[in-house]
Amino acid sequence: MPANSIGEHLILTTCGESHGEALLGILDGVPSGICIDMDAINREMARRRPGQSAISTPRDEKDEVRIISGVFEGKTTGTSIGMMIKNADQHSSDYSEIASKFRPSHADFTYTSKYGLRDYRGGGRSSARETAIRVAAGAIARQVLPEGVDIKAYVSSVGGVSLDTDYTRYDLNKIESNELRCPDAVKADAMRALIMEARSSGDSIGGVVTCVIKGVPVGLGEPIFDRLEARLAAAMMSIPASKGFEVGSGFASSCMRGSEHNDAFVEGGRTSTNRSGGIQGGISNGMDIYFRVAFKPVATIMKEQETIDIDGHSTTLKARGRHDPCVVPRAVPIVEAMAALTLADFYLIDRMTRIKK
Amino acid sequence: MPANSIGEHLILTTCGESHGEALLGILDGVPSGICIDMDAINREMARRRPGQSAISTPRDEKDEVRIISGVFEGKTTGTSIGMMIKNADQHSSDYSEIASKFRPSHADFTYTSKYGLRDYRGGGRSSARETAIRVAAGAIARQVLPEGVDIKAYVSSVGGVSLDTDYTRYDLNKIESNELRCPDAVKADAMRALIMEARSSGDSIGGVVTCVIKGVPVGLGEPIFDRLEARLAAAMMSIPASKGFEVGSGFASSCMRGSEHNDAFVEGGRTSTNRSGGIQGGISNGMDIYFRVAFKPVATIMKEQETIDIDGHSTTLKARGRHDPCVVPRAVPIVEAMAALTLADFYLIDRMTRIKK
Amino acid sequence: MPANSIGEHLILTTCGESHGEALLGILDGVPSGICIDMDAINREMARRRPGQSAISTPRDEKDEVRIISGVFEGKTTGTSIGMMIKNADQHSSDYSEIASKFRPSHADFTYTSKYGLRDYRGGGRSSARETAIRVAAGAIARQVLPEGVDIKAYVSSVGGVSLDTDYTRYDLNKIESNELRCPDAVKADAMRALIMEARSSGDSIGGVVTCVIKGVPVGLGEPIFDRLEARLAAAMMSIPASKGFEVGSGFASSCMRGSEHNDAFVEGGRTSTNRSGGIQGGISNGMDIYFRVAFKPVATIMKEQETIDIDGHSTTLKARGRHDPCVVPRAVPIVEAMAALTLADFYLIDRMTRIKK
Amino acid sequence: MPANSIGEHLILTTCGESHGEALLGILDGVPSGICIDMDAINREMARRRPGQSAISTPRDEKDEVRIISGVFEGKTTGTSIGMMIKNADQHSSDYSEIASKFRPSHADFTYTSKYGLRDYRGGGRSSARETAIRVAAGAIARQVLPEGVDIKAYVSSVGGVSLDTDYTRYDLNKIESNELRCPDAVKADAMRALIMEARSSGDSIGGVVTCVIKGVPVGLGEPIFDRLEARLAAAMMSIPASKGFEVGSGFASSCMRGSEHNDAFVEGGRTSTNRSGGIQGGISNGMDIYFRVAFKPVATIMKEQETIDIDGHSTTLKARGRHDPCVVPRAVPIVEAMAALTLADFYLIDRMTRIKK
Repeated sequence: MPANSIGEHLILTTCGESHGEALLGILDGVPSGICIDMDAINREMARRRPGQSAISTPRDEKDEVRIISGVFEGKTTGTSIGMMIKNADQHSSDYSEIASKFRPSHADFTYTSKYGLRDYRGGGRSSARETAIRVAAGAIARQVLPEGVDIKAYVSSVGGVSLDTDYTRYDLNKIESNELRCPDAVKADAMRALIMEARSSGDSIGGVVTCVIKGVPVGLGEPIFDRLEARLAAAMMSIPASKGFEVGSGFASSCMRGSEHNDAFVEGGRTSTNRSGGIQGGISNGMDIYFRVAFKPVATIMKEQETIDIDGHSTTLKARGRHDPCVVPRAVPIVEAMAALTLADFYLIDRMTRIKK
Repeated sequence: MPANSIGEHLILTTCGESHGEALLGILDGVPSGICIDMDAINREMARRRPGQSAISTPRDEKDEVRIISGVFEGKTTGTSIGMMIKNADQHSSDYSEIASKFRPSHADFTYTSKYGLRDYRGGGRSSARETAIRVAAGAIARQVLPEGVDIKAYVSSVGGVSLDTDYTRYDLNKIESNELRCPDAVKADAMRALIMEARSSGDSIGGVVTCVIKGVPVGLGEPIFDRLEARLAAAMMSIPASKGFEVGSGFASSCMRGSEHNDAFVEGGRTSTNRSGGIQGGISNGMDIYFRVAFKPVATIMKEQETIDIDGHSTTLKARGRHDPCVVPRAVPIVEAMAALTLADFYLIDRMTRIKK
Repeated sequence: MPANSIGEHLILTTCGESHGEALLGILDGVPSGICIDMDAINREMARRRPGQSAISTPRDEKDEVRIISGVFEGKTTGTSIGMMIKNADQHSSDYSEIASKFRPSHADFTYTSKYGLRDYRGGGRSSARETAIRVAAGAIARQVLPEGVDIKAYVSSVGGVSLDTDYTRYDLNKIESNELRCPDAVKADAMRALIMEARSSGDSIGGVVTCVIKGVPVGLGEPIFDRLEARLAAAMMSIPASKGFEVGSGFASSCMRGSEHNDAFVEGGRTSTNRSGGIQGGISNGMDIYFRVAFKPVATIMKEQETIDIDGHSTTLKARGRHDPCVVPRAVPIVEAMAALTLADFYLIDRMTRIKK
Repeated sequence: MPANSIGEHLILTTCGESHGEALLGILDGVPSGICIDMDAINREMARRRPGQSAISTPRDEKDEVRIISGVFEGKTTGTSIGMMIKNADQHSSDYSEIASKFRPSHADFTYTSKYGLRDYRGGGRSSARETAIRVAAGAIARQVLPEGVDIKAYVSSVGGVSLDTDYTRYDLNKIESNELRCPDAVKADAMRALIMEARSSGDSIGGVVTCVIKGVPVGLGEPIFDRLEARLAAAMMSIPASKGFEVGSGFASSCMRGSEHNDAFVEGGRTSTNRSGGIQGGISNGMDIYFRVAFKPVATIMKEQETIDIDGHSTTLKARGRHDPCVVPRAVPIVEAMAALTLADFYLIDRMTRIKK
């Protein structure tokens, strides 16, 4: 599997730089006969697109997805699905400073060291711009999943303002009711204040996204190395700026006894608690799957920082341009997209699990 | 890639159940000409093997690794390396209860649901017994890595007794000086007391393993989806009982500002701080890589629990047998092995990155 | 690996239908720092494009390749390379007959049976139109290969008019001197006459392409299952209309004794004969690699044929439209492209073979 | 996918040298719930094993397959299946000559050049001994395939003594009635005479194996690059000593017109002829699949040959030891095994093709 692909059977392969002509994605392995809902795809794109609210980057991209192949008369044909998103708003600004200096905690240094050169325009391939095509593919993956699977992510923490870790205390239908994508309106206001303050001081701020998936059939996930939690972790940790992943009880489980932590089975196969987070032995058990993804504050800030130039000499850098002070609200649809791709892949693979001649 | 394989170029494929005849592993992609140090392999096996101390399971397995192929006159030949570990101490005990009831928070229910049957003897394939072959393969992977790469993991928390998250405060050469594999002897005693107490009450207890990798060359990791942190996360989350992963500043980064979090570059390319955890843009930057893995308390406890039988009816279960009350000390060599496999894979892949005709 | 991808490390993933908006390809794994020669890519496209001579289809496609990503200031960046070829000349003709009837020996029946529906416009995904993107990717792959590797294919047989199987009897620099791509001008005239006669009677005709690769370094190919000949065979047999593959002495070897067939080594490592076709034990030995690929006559002919409709009932069909009476001259650059992709992949993989710490 | 693995979902990974302790194989992706017929496996092993008749090598290997994992109480569990075949009859003879000289047309030179060293005992990994584990895995793959799929291969040519290429003229149930595995008893006698003559002169001789597969469901094979014929070609060309592959009309198709070659559909979807060889557009069409594989004469002969030593200097070599003068009768079960693995893989993959929510 190449580095720009993800999945075992339902596989997304992508290319494209921040300031190139377009982003392309090829989604292979989609079964035939699925009616593609373009409106659903566009809705997800709108959730991720820049410029959607006061707290995000003013870069304005329509992010219209064109389906190039694999769909005929509204239905998938079983062949590879091509997607294209044109880059409209490429500021052909002055890149001389960013071309010659490495932004602290950014990919500039490692890309240059590894490859010997880099496309520095807007971060090139290392820009989070590439996630747009993931959202498009994820929207198709949702349509591959059986009805009833419901994937909802939300912002559960920004800069230390945090929601209760128990997601069942919130009405997840309220996530889209504010620009924070936070089901607690009061906390959302506090988060918003933090973000605006960070922006005004030229700074950025981190946060956490929680994802809850209901209606997952029993049996998804493939031990030993393709455990559902392992593949979810890889999918989430492939999102730019992510620094941590925990499923179910997560890090808190490390403080617990087995007698407190175990989920007792009740008549029929459900469990009375769900500290397992819907996964046991690497396989979904039919309970809600939930996990949390930590995001660091974005590296590009408008404050002067100590750094080096491409010759290794000390210098300072103060970024300009259009950047999100906090990526987590826009990370919500990306987390959902990566979850959808992962689950849909396992859903298809699971069809091969048991023999029914 | 099949579910029982891990890696892109350096690939480990495994099979074997807890109470089967043997565990097998095939490690493919090892370059030729490496002198294999069998003592180093055996040392790692001894660190993982059961029955090594009072705090681990009394199951006694010598865990001798036989190299079946791929090594000739002490050197690797470039062909696939076969490994075999015989299962010596299979108690042919009475499995009737475990065969007919599902252990809470164990893989019994999901395996049976997915596959329609399961090898219930000792947990079958879902037993952590399978990790023995990972340790053997990891010991070979260490020998593939260039000299100077040093992978050290330790127990940083048990049941809430925790070390400072800053690993630089400890002497990592002291890890093996106690059975806890904890570089802080005082904390180790407190952890030990917790574990013994859990054992005496038939309970289990969770913990955290921290891993520090020094001497990694710049340039390992392959964006977009094969970021170094994504592959490390998947490797760690494939270890039984793991519930969380964080790299560098991890979840704590979500509370920080960019101006606090960013690692300033200093003359030559190193950074003055290392909140990035040695990885930027998915690629190693030459600084120490460090990450934490959370482990839940093991599911099998000697206390009576509510559960169901294979017909879905309520019942109770009280496990018997030989089980670790706390897996984290024995998880330390497994975490190191998975780190070694991941890094060695990227080390080989990186050879193809730049053209030198 | 998905079905629309080929390669282990240098991987081409494609999508696109005959009458869709465009063909897309993503080539992943290209090392950084290669100066991309666009003229060389365009030359290869011109060799494959329809409408290039009297003996090919009059469909007129410019087949301009746009590089969408992965190249910056003329050099590869190490990230995935996106390619797009727009479909210009889509005749929006009447497809009602072809939509409801299965063309004999075409993919219509199997696609419909497997997927439940098909994009019938111009053959959809099953059209050889998809090979255009292979040629573009192959042209890049040639630039990955070390200097001195020279891949040349030619038409060695059409409808039974055949060249000597010993390629050393021909001047391979004369291949492009006629539209047949045949280094024997006299035989080329005879082949041309056959093709024109087939065309005038609404028929098609088969042929053979021979490929010779000089300058391949010793050591390419990975036993056991990734033998060089196995991967070449798969690459060639993935070309539409191919029915057979033989390397070196090929089928003729089945009539020989070991004492006649073996290639004696001479001082330094070369062999005095080359019945092995440059491959021994699945690995290149530094001698010329040569192989032959058989192509059947294309299925779509302008004669009335017995067939069935989509309900399974007997009917007749007489194709209309623009089709090559003989694909083999245009298959020459496709064979070369697939050879280049295969060799470049092994060239990169071989870098990981031996340890040089 | 590593070089010692084959398959996309049903994946065989192998290791082991000719004179090592054992051959190992891990077959991953086998669905759960299949009753494993050990007798059927042993029957296939007996067909491949050396020493079975006067025309094969006298090396005597029982080739007993031990199933190490993945089968519980006679049924597959859905986990990876481990297989072990011990090497019993390792002659610890004098290898000094073979260690220091390269056998013409053997893998000695290329392995040494690529890897810098080789296990020269009995050919090491390059010995056809490795195919034993393929036969074991293939016997399991047959049990994965739906009932009614019947794979039968036979010797259709030895040293120029050839059967009619139309397999329907023979009673394929007579294949095992002679040691040649040839359904034509008269031709079998002639082939036998050729082989005995080659043996007596210390020589070897080539041949062709034809394989016929009946009862394949419509829909197996995955365009574009995973066409059924491409994957069959790769599987066959991975067998030691194979030099050519052709499916259906094969090379003969290159001399034909479309009007002669096309297979007319008849009421219901079958075709009146079958020049396509059961595959159209890379997908099985429900007709018999048939193909031919050419094998060169084995390289190791008992005659003196010109060659070089490991320092590149000219010398002569006259092999000793136990070798088949003609491998094709023993290649028959190997061809069948590789066909079974390929088809079973596609059979499982096809389950994911169409959506049935």
